[in-house]
Amino acid sequence: MKFCSACGQPVSQRIPDGDHLPRYVCGACQTIHYENPRLIVGCVPEYDGKILLCKRAIEPRLGYWTLPAGFMENGESLQMAAARESMEEALATVEIGSLVAIVNVLHAHQVHVLFRARLLNPNVGAGPESLAVGLFEEHEIPWPDIAFRSVEFALRRYLEDRRNGRDGLHFHDLTPPPTA
Amino acid sequence: MKFCSACGQPVSQRIPDGDHLPRYVCGACQTIHYENPRLIVGCVPEYDGKILLCKRAIEPRLGYWTLPAGFMENGESLQMAAARESMEEALATVEIGSLVAIVNVLHAHQVHVLFRARLLNPNVGAGPESLAVGLFEEHEIPWPDIAFRSVEFALRRYLEDRRNGRDGLHFHDLTPPPTA
Repeated sequence: MKFCSACGQPVSQRIPDGDHLPRYVCGACQTIHYENPRLIVGCVPEYDGKILLCKRAIEPRLGYWTLPAGFMENGESLQMAAARESMEEALATVEIGSLVAIVNVLHAHQVHVLFRARLLNPNVGAGPESLAVGLFEEHEIPWPDIAFRSVEFALRRYLEDRRNGRDGLHFHDLTPPPTA
Repeated sequence: MKFCSACGQPVSQRIPDGDHLPRYVCGACQTIHYENPRLIVGCVPEYDGKILLCKRAIEPRLGYWTLPAGFMENGESLQMAAARESMEEALATVEIGSLVAIVNVLHAHQVHVLFRARLLNPNVGAGPESLAVGLFEEHEIPWPDIAFRSVEFALRRYLEDRRNGRDGLHFHDLTPPPTA
């Protein structure tokens, strides 16, 4: 952030009166511009025991497999966002169930929220952000080609809970992966 | 939003290629400025059966009672945010537990996330955003003076669950209240 979105003049970082963290503050109109974590919302759609995955057509992680998920939009609920992403990425009609995972992605300033979901019919297809979609038995899941650590976490907890007849909510914190 | 935070030139609303919602887009550098819901995170701190509430020293709802809660900051987890807000608003040291409520506040573009929490000692006090803090038995809670509908929802579900020996997670969607 270099300029004020309210008046167009330059911003600088300083700690406002009564605050305790540096914020971008406009030197002209004094508007304080707060930056907060964003919500990425998705689900684990299941149909006849199989899991719906999407092969990404966009960066990051183009060509890798993921659960339907994306940025929550203003004016929708978490559940609406998860259902919308399923429709957009996999042309999938889902019924959103309980929460399975919440992953704090500390370095990315994101919170990833994944629900259980029932895929209402097997008529799925690749939306514009997907190269392909597929329904996978547990033993068919392409673990080395899963796009994101949060998605792998949610999928593994989902499958464990399913085996154990549970319906848990699992938290996880992610920091940057170790570099080679 | 009137100006681009990257280059300072005017923005206008249009639907970018491949998108389906209007966004603020810079006419000069073409940066797309996404706006997403913000997370408000807090907790229900309990000590010896009593609930910690804070009387607000700031607008909105100055003078009304609330649970410790506030905007999540970049770089922290939901749990860290809930604990930080308890310290800031009530000088309270808490141990964050399970989720009790997630409230989608559709018109405000917010998601309110409330955890159960154990207040580790009764040494609490009013932080700069509080006029007073107090530990309330269930029958002492000032229901007509609770600041926000999401806080009332979380408190009521918390107390119901406690009576029933449960530990549920409760969802709720809020739209604007009816006007007189």
